[in-house]
Amino acid sequence: MLNGLMMDDYQLTIAAVAERAEYFHRNKEVVSRRPDGSIVRSTLGACGARARRLASALAQLGVADGDRVATLMWNQIEHMEMYLAVPAMGAVVHTLNPRLHPDELSFIVGDAQDRVLVVDESLLDVFDNIREGHTFDHVIVVAHDEPAPEGTLNYHDLVDSAAPMPWPSVDEHRAAAMCYTSGTTGRPKGVVYSHRALVLHSLTAALPDTLGVSARDTLLPVVPMFHANAWGLPYAAALIGARLVLPGRQLDPSSVLDLLADERVTITAGVPTVWMGMLAELDADPHRWDLTRLDRLIVGGAAVPRSLLEGFDRHGLTVVQAWGMTETTPLGSICRLPDDLDDSSRDEQYEFRSRQGIAVPFVEIRARREEGDLIDWDDKSMGELEVRGPWVAAAYHNGSGADSFTPDGWFRTGDIVRIDHRGCIRICDRAKDLVKSGGEWISSVDLENHLMAHPAVAEAAVVAVPDARWGERPLAVLALREGKSVDPDALREHLSTEFAKWQMPDRFEILPAIPRTATGKFRKTALREQFS
Amino acid sequence: MLNGLMMDDYQLTIAAVAERAEYFHRNKEVVSRRPDGSIVRSTLGACGARARRLASALAQLGVADGDRVATLMWNQIEHMEMYLAVPAMGAVVHTLNPRLHPDELSFIVGDAQDRVLVVDESLLDVFDNIREGHTFDHVIVVAHDEPAPEGTLNYHDLVDSAAPMPWPSVDEHRAAAMCYTSGTTGRPKGVVYSHRALVLHSLTAALPDTLGVSARDTLLPVVPMFHANAWGLPYAAALIGARLVLPGRQLDPSSVLDLLADERVTITAGVPTVWMGMLAELDADPHRWDLTRLDRLIVGGAAVPRSLLEGFDRHGLTVVQAWGMTETTPLGSICRLPDDLDDSSRDEQYEFRSRQGIAVPFVEIRARREEGDLIDWDDKSMGELEVRGPWVAAAYHNGSGADSFTPDGWFRTGDIVRIDHRGCIRICDRAKDLVKSGGEWISSVDLENHLMAHPAVAEAAVVAVPDARWGERPLAVLALREGKSVDPDALREHLSTEFAKWQMPDRFEILPAIPRTATGKFRKTALREQFS
Repeated sequence: MLNGLMMDDYQLTIAAVAERAEYFHRNKEVVSRRPDGSIVRSTLGACGARARRLASALAQLGVADGDRVATLMWNQIEHMEMYLAVPAMGAVVHTLNPRLHPDELSFIVGDAQDRVLVVDESLLDVFDNIREGHTFDHVIVVAHDEPAPEGTLNYHDLVDSAAPMPWPSVDEHRAAAMCYTSGTTGRPKGVVYSHRALVLHSLTAALPDTLGVSARDTLLPVVPMFHANAWGLPYAAALIGARLVLPGRQLDPSSVLDLLADERVTITAGVPTVWMGMLAELDADPHRWDLTRLDRLIVGGAAVPRSLLEGFDRHGLTVVQAWGMTETTPLGSICRLPDDLDDSSRDEQYEFRSRQGIAVPFVEIRARREEGDLIDWDDKSMGELEVRGPWVAAAYHNGSGADSFTPDGWFRTGDIVRIDHRGCIRICDRAKDLVKSGGEWISSVDLENHLMAHPAVAEAAVVAVPDARWGERPLAVLALREGKSVDPDALREHLSTEFAKWQMPDRFEILPAIPRTATGKFRKTALREQFS
Repeated sequence: MLNGLMMDDYQLTIAAVAERAEYFHRNKEVVSRRPDGSIVRSTLGACGARARRLASALAQLGVADGDRVATLMWNQIEHMEMYLAVPAMGAVVHTLNPRLHPDELSFIVGDAQDRVLVVDESLLDVFDNIREGHTFDHVIVVAHDEPAPEGTLNYHDLVDSAAPMPWPSVDEHRAAAMCYTSGTTGRPKGVVYSHRALVLHSLTAALPDTLGVSARDTLLPVVPMFHANAWGLPYAAALIGARLVLPGRQLDPSSVLDLLADERVTITAGVPTVWMGMLAELDADPHRWDLTRLDRLIVGGAAVPRSLLEGFDRHGLTVVQAWGMTETTPLGSICRLPDDLDDSSRDEQYEFRSRQGIAVPFVEIRARREEGDLIDWDDKSMGELEVRGPWVAAAYHNGSGADSFTPDGWFRTGDIVRIDHRGCIRICDRAKDLVKSGGEWISSVDLENHLMAHPAVAEAAVVAVPDARWGERPLAVLALREGKSVDPDALREHLSTEFAKWQMPDRFEILPAIPRTATGKFRKTALREQFS
């Protein structure tokens, strides 16, 4: 046995990331849009320096090692300061999703034992809805226009009056951040990110074949900072010295397009619904925005229909699909066209780009059939995806959800996938959304993607409904494009090119819009209840 | 205190890198030029798979955890297999520099206690020179044309006949690789790389602003695999899935240019002397090689004269300067033009690009005056560079060279630098090469660079010679370009635009060529002795 003689005790911490921002990227701009639409311009250096003052202020309020400090904030510069300050001082930044139901939020702040809350003034109503259920030691308000309400502290006053904190040594295994999964079933479960996980995730996120973040890039995370670390963009920006644009609360398509154009953004990221709306705007008025600097749109959080890839290609914009979960920090895989497909047909390229991609370095994958055996990487067999790696959860906070982990230490994603010979994954369904008909699995995602390729269909969600003979049968819920109509026979005809008769939905239901969860996904539980 | 709940026990090991090559990059080509000039084509997948057989064969020969397995090899595919197999099985790959003096090599194999040697048949004479001084348990020969000599084993026979090894769990702090510094003074010192250091170094090396390695790249390390992990290129290729071209023993300019063109290389790396020779070939026959795919030449190991940057720019090729040492795995800093200099003048851009650049993420820097205080980042003050970070040595093997580490745990590089407001370093000298004249420091590197910009001068080395009045004075040793001549007055005139009179060399000596060390650096100790 021989140990290495390197500085292995150098800890991979957010303090190191914050220091890098402060010392090496001091003039790199951070642009933040306030709730009133005005733009605040600062720098990564100022963020790093202000984080030290913020940390001192929190310490004076009694925040100590491992204490949870919650945020109710948009993608805004003060949230970035929190991202740096709280972990760097040894505490835990806990991002709350303001769109959750108050009961759920109340459960979450109690389960996490949040001691301090930092809330943007535009989200004070959300705080009002949960203040009965949980007592914070302190509530700090990012006040823009109004003074902070009585009984609360003013964020900017606190930061301005505090002295800079020299960052303490923190073990890389300590908790740095926390985020709850908005499970569609059961109680939300807390994911606790270590410093090590966040740092390794940031390095991998910035690699050329992952997000590819350089100091010449400008990043705009549309994905909220309260969703799984905004997919790693804020920390990647701080580490690499990329320019960062934080869009605030206005995330309607044309507000985002304005910012993408005005700030010459090169990389942006968000869920498919955001980009669908944006595509409609671009199609309606292709020359309104100058997006020549925009190099790639990272899309994840739900399957990306081919129509979305094709739609943006029409405007010269490349959509790159990624897969991940709150439990995977979140980057698990990304779909970049390999060079040996450069000369393949358009169809083959789209077929590949519609997949969730290849696991990023150090994320290991395998998939398991219901019977317990692992599937082959033959692009045909379906199984539940299991992953492990340095930024994959090993457990949930307070021991909940233990059945999500295999006895040999892999995380069960709940996603049903196929894997091809390259190791490229294709999500066929969420395990709970899979339709089990007559002993065979039918992928709701495959049906949805193909239905959304029909010119009359804007959105499609396929759910399982109980069936006396087959156990379950697929039912399709559709929202149609403005002014369009379609009948079931035409839809069956459209599907028949790809699906066998037994795989096709028995019923098609039309709704004005498909109900969505707080994270923008189809609310399939509601649809199942409604149509069962 | 709250610990993260991520898979922090996931170990960052070379086994994970080897598995990634084997499973995810199985069709990615590895091209290897044999000593006879013929080309062998294989894949990263085959390398990963063969590494398992090689490991089994070594285990059968008695190689166990932490044992050192030495290599005497060129940049060749078998060396790549060793890079993967030996660390992945839990042993330590120790790369030997065949150009060292036999006494030095004998000391090194003894100090490291190498148990097994793997030697390319073209380097058997080097082995013959050291076999008296050290007994290896086994000597394995990579035999191409001749059978392996009696008393040795045949590499390919061993690998072919062994069964694949399932990689064992290895702690990331264990030693993975070893390399000795070829100090110009004192005994060579062993640097022992941990798995963790090599993995983190590979991730950082691949970042867009470091080497920028994607699966669409083809890498050709001219820098030997026996020099500080070939600057991280082989492991980066395995991790990312880049195509890898290994040039073997023929490193003359036109052989390398042939390979760069024929194999459509995108990134290459080596010391300045390699590129100087190559530039002369390109200048002589600019259209002989099609280098349109070549995107960047990473140059390090010695200061890069501006003439080299300008010379390659003439051919549309970008030279990127990097700084590092065997003790820093080796990447410490890299010089990429920041976007705020895009519109600055040609001169300003070259001035910046002549620097050693900004520390890569997680490498921390500071510099200290002889008096002990740290210098300001004002681009004027000079001090000895100290670094720390996850891939910086914390000690040498067997406890030698303890004075290279500060009491608070930083590594003293021995390089005298200036640091600007961005954190960009400029090496003024090696501490031991600095000329100390009348209490002032004179940078030999600055003088050399300016002398090499003179049209008659091919190479310049400046050394300190004892002086009764001033303590030391600079003396310049020059090699002139073919057919050129120059006199001291002309050289002083040339230097006078940049240097004060007291900074100029008192003497100029002309040699046919400047003597070099085994690693291609000027042998300044020899020059000092000769001219003192």
